[in-house]
Amino acid sequence: MRIDIITVLPELLDSPLNCSILKRAQDKGLAEIFVHNLRDYSTNKHRRVDDYPFGGTAGMVMQIEPVDRAISKLKSERIYDEVIFTSPDGEQFKQSMANRLSMAGNLIILCGHYKGIDYRIREHLITKEISIGDYVLTGGELAAAVMCDAIIRLIPGAIGDEQSALSDSFQDNLLAAPIYTRPSEYKGWKVPDILLSGHQRKIEEWEHDMSVERTRRLRPDLLEDE
Amino acid sequence: MRIDIITVLPELLDSPLNCSILKRAQDKGLAEIFVHNLRDYSTNKHRRVDDYPFGGTAGMVMQIEPVDRAISKLKSERIYDEVIFTSPDGEQFKQSMANRLSMAGNLIILCGHYKGIDYRIREHLITKEISIGDYVLTGGELAAAVMCDAIIRLIPGAIGDEQSALSDSFQDNLLAAPIYTRPSEYKGWKVPDILLSGHQRKIEEWEHDMSVERTRRLRPDLLEDE
Repeated sequence: MRIDIITVLPELLDSPLNCSILKRAQDKGLAEIFVHNLRDYSTNKHRRVDDYPFGGTAGMVMQIEPVDRAISKLKSERIYDEVIFTSPDGEQFKQSMANRLSMAGNLIILCGHYKGIDYRIREHLITKEISIGDYVLTGGELAAAVMCDAIIRLIPGAIGDEQSALSDSFQDNLLAAPIYTRPSEYKGWKVPDILLSGHQRKIEEWEHDMSVERTRRLRPDLLEDE
Repeated sequence: MRIDIITVLPELLDSPLNCSILKRAQDKGLAEIFVHNLRDYSTNKHRRVDDYPFGGTAGMVMQIEPVDRAISKLKSERIYDEVIFTSPDGEQFKQSMANRLSMAGNLIILCGHYKGIDYRIREHLITKEISIGDYVLTGGELAAAVMCDAIIRLIPGAIGDEQSALSDSFQDNLLAAPIYTRPSEYKGWKVPDILLSGHQRKIEEWEHDMSVERTRRLRPDLLEDE
């Protein structure tokens, strides 16, 4: 899979895209991530890519022209499954969407910045608007990094143990069961006896019961979605 | 405000915490962010902080002992408003929570990693579990960066124009109105005439109507929350 990220702040993405699972997935050839500086597509001699909004709202607005040039260049080179814009009013990013996008071939992610982007970009150039949550970020860069991580870790081989991703929260509409490791007692706080019992079948039953109980208590909405 | 982040991957946070608004806020003395390597609190000679889970689940689990040592050391130095753990089954991070947390004095954010953390940490050491969305990330580092950005940009003086944050999506339970900048026509795609009219009152009415219309169409749930 290939992800092209268009941003005015490529340096913000340096460490998230080159650590841990994202580094490993790229080293193994499972994913390619390219970060493009939007300023390289400016026709302005000061490499400006923003301007004042029409109508007198506060803040600056990302212009359509450099964005169009950047997206057009990429689209002239290969077919993209989606041209994504990260926006708090987009469709909610959920595990099911991460699953779907992990099977894409090529994705473009445009990171908004400043007060926002010229609305014509959203109407004419973007195929999918995605929000990672109901909060406002300074820019779309962290949202792009979050999506890359959530998507790429699902590609078979990206994380060490495939079982591990399958038993994550949300994959079966249930929250994960509590997990414990050594020591079995710490400051008087004990690991549940059942987990030390060695009865694999009973342990699995307990884990399932705990998953259901935690989901009922903390996120009943996940059960209703079924 | 001061935020202490405890993580096994401090290097992943390098660029997000030292760019853009987060850099500016720290340079201006509005916020301090300290990143602590959990391995510095390991008593193991190989600086290990994880171990196999009891009960045979796949993956590795972050141990309670180094986490307890790291949190205890910080808490011995100052009072913390919250000790936050980033987890997909925590309380949903929303703009209202960002607003509230932006008024805190000191926060600890513990980033989970591997398959998860020993559940006793969550029961005994954490005061608030927060999820940035219904998806699974490799670790809590990006969630911590997202929270830092959403929270710190709300501190007065962090972003250039305070008006700008107040007119963001969600601050009044409405999505933002479309915005446009020069050129007023691009490839035949035009900016709405009203925005070029100069009638400030009419423009504000239009913007409000568009906000309400977009919210009704895209996120009717936000209006029900009122």
